Amino acid sequence: MKKTLITLAVLSTASVAYADEGMWMPQQLPQVAKELKAAGLKLDPATLTKLTEFPMGAIVSLGGCSASFVSPQGLVATNHHCVYGSVAYNSKPERNLLANGFLANTLAEELPAAPGSRIFVTKEVTNVSDKIISKDVAKLEGKKRVDAIEKNSKALVAECEKDAGHRCNVYPYYGGLEFYMIKQMEIRDVRLVHAPAEGVGKFGGDTDNWMWPRHTGDYGFYRAYVSKDGKAADYSKDNVPYVPKHYLKLAKDGLSEGDFVMVLGYPGRTNRHRLPSEVAYTFDWSYPAFVKASGESLAIIAKETANDPDAKLKYASQVAGINNYYKNRQGMLDSYAGSDFLARKTKEHEELKAWVNSNPARAKEFASDIADVEKLIAQRDAQGKREFFLDRSYPRLLSTARSLYRLANETTKPDAERKAGFQVRDLPRFKAGVEAVERNYVEKVDKALVLNSLSQYAALSKDQRSANFDAAIGIKDGMSEADLKTLLDNLYAGSKLGDKATRAAWLNAKPEDFKTSNDSFIKAAVAMYEGGLKHEAEDEELAGKIQQAYANYMKAKIAFMKSKGQAVYPDANSTLRVTFGKVAGRDHGTADGLAWSAFTTVNGIPPKATGQGEFNAPAAQLAAIKAKDFGKYVDPKLKAVPLAYLATLDITGGNSGSAALNAKGEFIGLAFDGTLDSIISDWDYNKANTRSIQVDLRYMLWQMKHVDKADKLIKEMGAE
Amino acid sequence: MKKTLITLAVLSTASVAYADEGMWMPQQLPQVAKELKAAGLKLDPATLTKLTEFPMGAIVSLGGCSASFVSPQGLVATNHHCVYGSVAYNSKPERNLLANGFLANTLAEELPAAPGSRIFVTKEVTNVSDKIISKDVAKLEGKKRVDAIEKNSKALVAECEKDAGHRCNVYPYYGGLEFYMIKQMEIRDVRLVHAPAEGVGKFGGDTDNWMWPRHTGDYGFYRAYVSKDGKAADYSKDNVPYVPKHYLKLAKDGLSEGDFVMVLGYPGRTNRHRLPSEVAYTFDWSYPAFVKASGESLAIIAKETANDPDAKLKYASQVAGINNYYKNRQGMLDSYAGSDFLARKTKEHEELKAWVNSNPARAKEFASDIADVEKLIAQRDAQGKREFFLDRSYPRLLSTARSLYRLANETTKPDAERKAGFQVRDLPRFKAGVEAVERNYVEKVDKALVLNSLSQYAALSKDQRSANFDAAIGIKDGMSEADLKTLLDNLYAGSKLGDKATRAAWLNAKPEDFKTSNDSFIKAAVAMYEGGLKHEAEDEELAGKIQQAYANYMKAKIAFMKSKGQAVYPDANSTLRVTFGKVAGRDHGTADGLAWSAFTTVNGIPPKATGQGEFNAPAAQLAAIKAKDFGKYVDPKLKAVPLAYLATLDITGGNSGSAALNAKGEFIGLAFDGTLDSIISDWDYNKANTRSIQVDLRYMLWQMKHVDKADKLIKEMGAE
Repeated sequence: MKKTLITLAVLSTASVAYADEGMWMPQQLPQVAKELKAAGLKLDPATLTKLTEFPMGAIVSLGGCSASFVSPQGLVATNHHCVYGSVAYNSKPERNLLANGFLANTLAEELPAAPGSRIFVTKEVTNVSDKIISKDVAKLEGKKRVDAIEKNSKALVAECEKDAGHRCNVYPYYGGLEFYMIKQMEIRDVRLVHAPAEGVGKFGGDTDNWMWPRHTGDYGFYRAYVSKDGKAADYSKDNVPYVPKHYLKLAKDGLSEGDFVMVLGYPGRTNRHRLPSEVAYTFDWSYPAFVKASGESLAIIAKETANDPDAKLKYASQVAGINNYYKNRQGMLDSYAGSDFLARKTKEHEELKAWVNSNPARAKEFASDIADVEKLIAQRDAQGKREFFLDRSYPRLLSTARSLYRLANETTKPDAERKAGFQVRDLPRFKAGVEAVERNYVEKVDKALVLNSLSQYAALSKDQRSANFDAAIGIKDGMSEADLKTLLDNLYAGSKLGDKATRAAWLNAKPEDFKTSNDSFIKAAVAMYEGGLKHEAEDEELAGKIQQAYANYMKAKIAFMKSKGQAVYPDANSTLRVTFGKVAGRDHGTADGLAWSAFTTVNGIPPKATGQGEFNAPAAQLAAIKAKDFGKYVDPKLKAVPLAYLATLDITGGNSGSAALNAKGEFIGLAFDGTLDSIISDWDYNKANTRSIQVDLRYMLWQMKHVDKADKLIKEMGAE
Repeated sequence: MKKTLITLAVLSTASVAYADEGMWMPQQLPQVAKELKAAGLKLDPATLTKLTEFPMGAIVSLGGCSASFVSPQGLVATNHHCVYGSVAYNSKPERNLLANGFLANTLAEELPAAPGSRIFVTKEVTNVSDKIISKDVAKLEGKKRVDAIEKNSKALVAECEKDAGHRCNVYPYYGGLEFYMIKQMEIRDVRLVHAPAEGVGKFGGDTDNWMWPRHTGDYGFYRAYVSKDGKAADYSKDNVPYVPKHYLKLAKDGLSEGDFVMVLGYPGRTNRHRLPSEVAYTFDWSYPAFVKASGESLAIIAKETANDPDAKLKYASQVAGINNYYKNRQGMLDSYAGSDFLARKTKEHEELKAWVNSNPARAKEFASDIADVEKLIAQRDAQGKREFFLDRSYPRLLSTARSLYRLANETTKPDAERKAGFQVRDLPRFKAGVEAVERNYVEKVDKALVLNSLSQYAALSKDQRSANFDAAIGIKDGMSEADLKTLLDNLYAGSKLGDKATRAAWLNAKPEDFKTSNDSFIKAAVAMYEGGLKHEAEDEELAGKIQQAYANYMKAKIAFMKSKGQAVYPDANSTLRVTFGKVAGRDHGTADGLAWSAFTTVNGIPPKATGQGEFNAPAAQLAAIKAKDFGKYVDPKLKAVPLAYLATLDITGGNSGSAALNAKGEFIGLAFDGTLDSIISDWDYNKANTRSIQVDLRYMLWQMKHVDKADKLIKEMGAE
């Protein structure tokens, strides 16, 4: 499970509670107190509801990854793949931290994390549903509704962010039925403390990604720093370690199969209770199209960068990302192919409608919105199909040009009226994005990727294409691939946006400067501007209608589930959640005749270790394993150091780095992955298959003590 | 587990009874009646003791393989690898039965099995211990004792075989402490009824041999034919199907994990209670030497037959055999390397001696024999080491020449006085062996193999070599490999025994003819004769001493075990045995983090099927799997047709083709293999690891009905 940059879903939906299933909002836990006790929790479930108390107070977000405080000096444990960027950022040819790992022996030796690294400590969660969908808003429809929601949301955020050093966001729950504002302390001085060698932390690489058996030591440590007066601050030598109100204690006893375990973190997105039509669209059209296009993109990047190590390096991250999603989507499609998911979903939806229609009051309240939501979603999906190739046919720098021109226009308005993403609070991130082009863009590769999509786009009939896009870059009916190539050659040749300084200059330009520019991409961006706003308004009109109907549909669904005695948790939306279950193998593995044991051990490393590439286990580690130098971390039954373990936990992307806790709330490892045949659970929870993968605390400590000599860090965490 | 041609062990030993462990003589079953009931047997254990009653009356031997009657018309079910030779024998380029399988639709279409094929139906088992070790014999020592045992045995056999159509043999049990004579009807007209395609029956080939997960449909069918009056007879068109007194009924219900299962068959050889010194000799010297030599042999055969398809074909069977044992022995060595086997064995032996010496009467009865057996075994093992290279340095035709000359000499005596193996009853098999040279001998390959061993032999000091052998073929101190090659070139060039007619003529020659021959191998055989007899006499002298001491040592051991309340079953010796246990996967598999499920299913075939070589599943089968055309053979939990299953049964080579029965004594499949990490159980029973592999009856029937259209055969077995 790679670090997933979460896009907040406008629509986040909900699901039903079964044992092991459920990404519970902390405040919901009393609803499942009985199940928690039955599963083995030794703490009072009520303690888990208090976000600023133990243990919730120790759980933090890195934005896309989860993490937790594990010492009174602001030490943060997370996955190796969540600190990877910071290790890479500090690596130099003469000091290859990725390959060799990194260990700061003193505070002074700790290294600044990659630019933009953040630690978010949740301080408050407030139900703002009535403030977002106020009585006035409730009367609005379409774009007006969307605009009003955005306006209310921005106002709440602005008020909240007056408390310097904090970031506030409003998140929709249950498909926009409820809204919560989350206030987080935003720690900006983040430092890298320790990461094992890549041959430990990324052992198995892409080959083992989503796989079991697993031998990845996916852990690493940051430290949060604040100003001397305890406030969030930019990096400074004078800053001091942040003293968290709470931190997790390390478990003294190891886990065994069947033991209670829970994971606390920030899952990104799930789609558990979508409409049948959304399932059909996604699995019968959207994912297959994505998989096909991804295969083409990978082939094109491989070809274009074949003899160009620099270009290869620049696209390495994108290739990893495409590969990750390619494997993810294909895995879901494989699961879907053999399942009755759509039939079940359709049946459930029909049952809901029958329940609604069986009672006149209910029918009056919900029936027309349910009919509407079906119609509106069909409209949105048809547009999605139509624009699939268009969305992939924008040259990277044309997208940059459009963003820059939009910024120039938005900047002419007062801050509060600007579109979200273009406000003052967004500028640092915006600028970083414009600068980043330098690090992951090569013209010939971009052009080849665009040409591939554009050829498929241009082959569509005129009514399926975008007149706005066609006019701006010159697409006409019946253009051959050679024509399109010439068109792109001219477009790319006519722009100077590939130059960093040029791009930076446009960050401060006025709309008039854009209108008089001869830069080909800037010209195209200006040409598309009005049409783009119109399209955006249409999208918002549709989104507003959907929000209204979908929220009411979800209300019906929750009522229906409640009528059957089932608690409902909201779909994941990058906010703090709790999932609980037990350590468990599976009586059927990926291959016929094989089952999965709950634990792997260090003994599984040597047979995989090839001494190179993805399986390059450090020699010192291999020697320690060979010598059975296991110390106190040996498991008496497994007769070796446990490395990773499976659990029946309901996690998804964004949970990377989440603390796994035992029945007493003690730290016992880090969630870092799921298995390929259970990722369909993002849509259709599969109780039999779903397993999360955690790195075992005993492996972390063994590697740190017996191989990496990080005794001081272990001591800081209160162990020996 | 390949078809193992069993050499009867002079020394067969005994073991202790635990659950799942035990190859019980049928008459011993009342001793473990409680365990059988506890395991789930629904039959009265006493019924299993009656060899001519159901179900024991249905169990037969093929000589090296086990089998069972499964219809009232003499239909015999066994493994595909047990009927393989007969399928190959009937295959022609234009009618490739191996590749395509074979199904006789009528009795008339059934094909004669390969020459020498036999079905042995056990009729009587008689304890003849007092007749073999009579009071007179008990007084004898050394060679005289061996000669007397052989004389008594031959007399009993001759008397027994007066009943025409029967074969009788005397088998030693408990290391020669007891002897049983077994009388078997020897059915000589054996016909091939059905074998699936090699892509089913041998699916996985050598790659999957000893492995799990397994997808081999290792089943085939013979039919026993007899004369019209029901007697064993040579092949004749007039013969009729044999009507067995009992045959197995097919189980109506499928097995599940945890179910009782037992296997009835003829295990070849185990070594469960050897002396510590025998364990050390075998695992520290003999098996490693064998593995090394086998590796050399395989390389030599591969090199010499590289561009010679005919030679490759002639050595295919030998290569398969070497590979099988190579994998087997290496597997045992791997298990031994990580075990405390020798230490435990030594401790047990010391405990036995302490128990013996703790009582004056026991010490008097056993102590000196235990001391003797240790000394004598050491002597035998030293000789084994000394002769390791010598035994592999005989040109194949020199061995043939020695056998022929021995036959000529033995034939001058009355039949009863001839050495066992050279009696009138042995002649058909003897002649077949001499003829068989034609089919699996190529001079250049044989010479290269001999040169390799001979070089290592000749490098030994003179006192470690055989003066008799050296003189006969001309080995002298300090010969170079080139000298040895010249020597072999001359030897091979000087013989006409490679010619079939020449060999056949020597079968009827007199000793004088040999003495005057100029054939190089015949001359060498004559030269070695007297020395060979002397060596044999010395061997027999040692064997006689060992038999005496070993039998008494075993008596002590049985008494010791009995004093601890443990029943003792004899080591396997190719006689009828029962083993019982349950269907069970294993919580630790071959790889870290994986476990073994108890069942594989047909769904495991497509991912392995490469369309060629060892994984060439038939297209019709793959189509049926794809279409989920599983009919009534689908397992409700596995949702597919179960293919093979693991059970905690104690089997070994020779058990191939053994019927697996459920708690009601119904046929539920065929044992065909064990797993690599449990074959050490031939020496050191490992309760945690040991699993036998059976092909599931449901797979046999599904493949026969849904793919091979063998409905008629299914009906004959009483199913539909």
